[in-house]
Amino acid sequence: MADIQESKDSLSENLQQVITLLEKHRLVENLVHKQEMQNHDLVESLVHRQNIYELQKKLDLLHPADVAYILEALPLEQRLDVWELVKAERDGEILLEVSDAVRQTLIADMDSEELLAAAEQLDTDELADLVPDLPKDVLQDLLDSLDSQNRERLQSALLYPDESVGALMDFDIITIREDVTLEVALRYLRRLGSLPNHTDKLFVVDRHDILQGVLPLKRMVVSDLDANVADVMAMEAVVFHPEDIADEAAKAFERYDLVTAPVVDDNNKLVGRITVDAVMDFIRHEAESDKLSMAGLREEEDFFASIWKSVQNRWAWLAINLVTALVASRVIGLFEESIERIVALAALMPIVAGIGGNSGNQTTTMIVRGLALGQIASHNMKSLITKELGVALLNGLLWGGVLGLIAYALYGSYQLGLVMMSAMTLNLLLAAIMGVMIPLVMNKIGRDPAVGSSVLITAMTDSGGFFIFLGLATIFLL
Amino acid sequence: MADIQESKDSLSENLQQVITLLEKHRLVENLVHKQEMQNHDLVESLVHRQNIYELQKKLDLLHPADVAYILEALPLEQRLDVWELVKAERDGEILLEVSDAVRQTLIADMDSEELLAAAEQLDTDELADLVPDLPKDVLQDLLDSLDSQNRERLQSALLYPDESVGALMDFDIITIREDVTLEVALRYLRRLGSLPNHTDKLFVVDRHDILQGVLPLKRMVVSDLDANVADVMAMEAVVFHPEDIADEAAKAFERYDLVTAPVVDDNNKLVGRITVDAVMDFIRHEAESDKLSMAGLREEEDFFASIWKSVQNRWAWLAINLVTALVASRVIGLFEESIERIVALAALMPIVAGIGGNSGNQTTTMIVRGLALGQIASHNMKSLITKELGVALLNGLLWGGVLGLIAYALYGSYQLGLVMMSAMTLNLLLAAIMGVMIPLVMNKIGRDPAVGSSVLITAMTDSGGFFIFLGLATIFLL
Repeated sequence: MADIQESKDSLSENLQQVITLLEKHRLVENLVHKQEMQNHDLVESLVHRQNIYELQKKLDLLHPADVAYILEALPLEQRLDVWELVKAERDGEILLEVSDAVRQTLIADMDSEELLAAAEQLDTDELADLVPDLPKDVLQDLLDSLDSQNRERLQSALLYPDESVGALMDFDIITIREDVTLEVALRYLRRLGSLPNHTDKLFVVDRHDILQGVLPLKRMVVSDLDANVADVMAMEAVVFHPEDIADEAAKAFERYDLVTAPVVDDNNKLVGRITVDAVMDFIRHEAESDKLSMAGLREEEDFFASIWKSVQNRWAWLAINLVTALVASRVIGLFEESIERIVALAALMPIVAGIGGNSGNQTTTMIVRGLALGQIASHNMKSLITKELGVALLNGLLWGGVLGLIAYALYGSYQLGLVMMSAMTLNLLLAAIMGVMIPLVMNKIGRDPAVGSSVLITAMTDSGGFFIFLGLATIFLL
Repeated sequence: MADIQESKDSLSENLQQVITLLEKHRLVENLVHKQEMQNHDLVESLVHRQNIYELQKKLDLLHPADVAYILEALPLEQRLDVWELVKAERDGEILLEVSDAVRQTLIADMDSEELLAAAEQLDTDELADLVPDLPKDVLQDLLDSLDSQNRERLQSALLYPDESVGALMDFDIITIREDVTLEVALRYLRRLGSLPNHTDKLFVVDRHDILQGVLPLKRMVVSDLDANVADVMAMEAVVFHPEDIADEAAKAFERYDLVTAPVVDDNNKLVGRITVDAVMDFIRHEAESDKLSMAGLREEEDFFASIWKSVQNRWAWLAINLVTALVASRVIGLFEESIERIVALAALMPIVAGIGGNSGNQTTTMIVRGLALGQIASHNMKSLITKELGVALLNGLLWGGVLGLIAYALYGSYQLGLVMMSAMTLNLLLAAIMGVMIPLVMNKIGRDPAVGSSVLITAMTDSGGFFIFLGLATIFLL
């Protein structure tokens, strides 16, 4: 039995072993280099080859997902050393397992022939994931090498956007007719010899491939062998269309606890299936890219990417923040005279702006979540806004009061304390309104509210906070 | 065929229908109230009951997950109206589907008898999810009502922490002996009549329940009926222990594309199983709570929670930010004299602090991700830090240069421009160092780096940014 604890331990152990072997390999190469080729052949044949052989043996024993893990964790040079040692017939599988960023580094290291060979090991649906990273000429050769059914499938799979059911589906479907007995069905399966991964049900179709129902294996094994497929199959299956949104499909998988589900076209003709592992990958990928984009990283970044690549990946966000910070700075500029006269304002103003930003982001997080779960609609908008304004008012009076007292203690002016408290309350109310409105508007105009909302909120509460605080101070303190 | 598109449309449609029916129901109640009980009986029997009946019929037709969705989207009062109409025998299932926050509102509305009845419909592993929310007296009655095996299972399930395999596992296992033929095995399954959800394999055990292997159904249906279970079963199954970390198990499910997996104790005795739907729920739940805690929300918040409850959920984060903002404010306070003399400093300083915070958070997000994927280890620390420092230096010179020019253009002092550029560069370098160190240290001391890192980074880059910028200005401009 492969124990999970063992398999986890050995994941980092594997990595450590590979690194050790790689280092030995480097050591020998340097040695050889220094000895000016004199004993080259001898050393090479004795030590070097031994290390390489050991490393290769080690890699051959690992699951493709585990090799992918090692490749991800290695700096570019070592990564390519390991990549060269991976058996060519496993290249395809492993390319599918690594992240986009690492895949690009590996593909850049392969010639057309190697790429074509790797691609030819894959199923059509897997190919569709790889194709966007392939050079044009390899792609053409690849298309030429496919039979017409698979070429058609690949081309249609490529047409579906990333976030659609069509992009998640595969073609590993076992179909059966409804008018045969289970006995006949089982005989047919035994002739097949093995079933595709994740097969938990057969798809029942008529002669035109129109879906009639699904026959779960677990129903098959408990039913009378003389029964007809039509009597045992489930008619009430959840089905998807290729153009359905992947996120909705993922929710349906969770909601109805599915393992596989058929995908049909508009005429109810079976075109493929979705499996729970594709759905899980999708959910994980979405969660990751949400986190990345909230921090303004455009895509997943290879840990060992060049500095220049990383700068490109991160610059857009910094540029946007530069603009919003400049706007906030100009707002402060409006009140330079007030600050010159009461310099305490300069020290206190970032507090008002900062707490506003945090509070606004809490509200936005709630609203984005509600939008994602489909729980926000016109019927509950009013009570939502009322609640958020209430929370903001209470927090404003509470924390604003605390801050007012601190300001009074520090600078001995109770008027300054009152301005502080009022500015905090007003900025938190602004944050609440913006925190509700911004994600709703972004959602309305078809943008992902999870991504840009946070920047916009912070921009509003920064500039707004400075304006409110300095404005009130100018009116009441000068 | 239940079409997913239909089922999605009808999700919001269902909600709308329930709301309409509820409103009619309210209307009638108000009417009855106004008419001072005169025609009460008549109206009640004619209209009111009709609406209630329609609503109840509607609810009975819905999947428990769909009823849960409606309950989540309704304000408290309407939610409880609907909850009363749900058939008592479905209470248990639905309580499992709603979020923790909503579950508490529903349980608060039920008496001990109703709760006990709801709990008794559930499996032991499902009970374990519900128990933390049950009042003590109900829990005692519940334990008394269980037979000894289930009581033991429930008690041990409660002992496992939330994030362990023990908390995810269920007990719906079908076991079989290895010395029987597939024919006999299939006859046994047919006698059972139906298999638990997600059964994709049988667990092969000896007479002491020691796990010998697993027998996938899809292997069973393609194999010769005369073969022995021992010949067909897989010995190389991934197995888990109840005390394994749930997150590791989830990664193994993704890595090895599992649907179910056995859970064994230290003697390899079978104690339960994990299913992919429990794993998916776990992944989704983790992703959600990451997002919430990054915005400083302690737990999922019922949309219609009272203002006071929401304030409690959010206050800790605001309090922490208040403290860090005060520290930053005191740093500015140190330089009040400089600001009094060059008031432009007040307008420019938030830019230096802000961009530093954003850049630091980008670095932290990368590191947290690398830690979660297990890709950060001692062997690559040096190249990571070098890279982040390089990115910071490049960004600092680039954006700092732009800002320096803007400062020069605005205030006509090239020295101010140079200070701006140097301060930006230094603060971005500080952000890079802190962005790498903080999550690593938090991870080392056993805290979740995803949660607190962002606050700490921002605190550092705010105070640090103010100090660096105002300090440089004081040295070089005054």
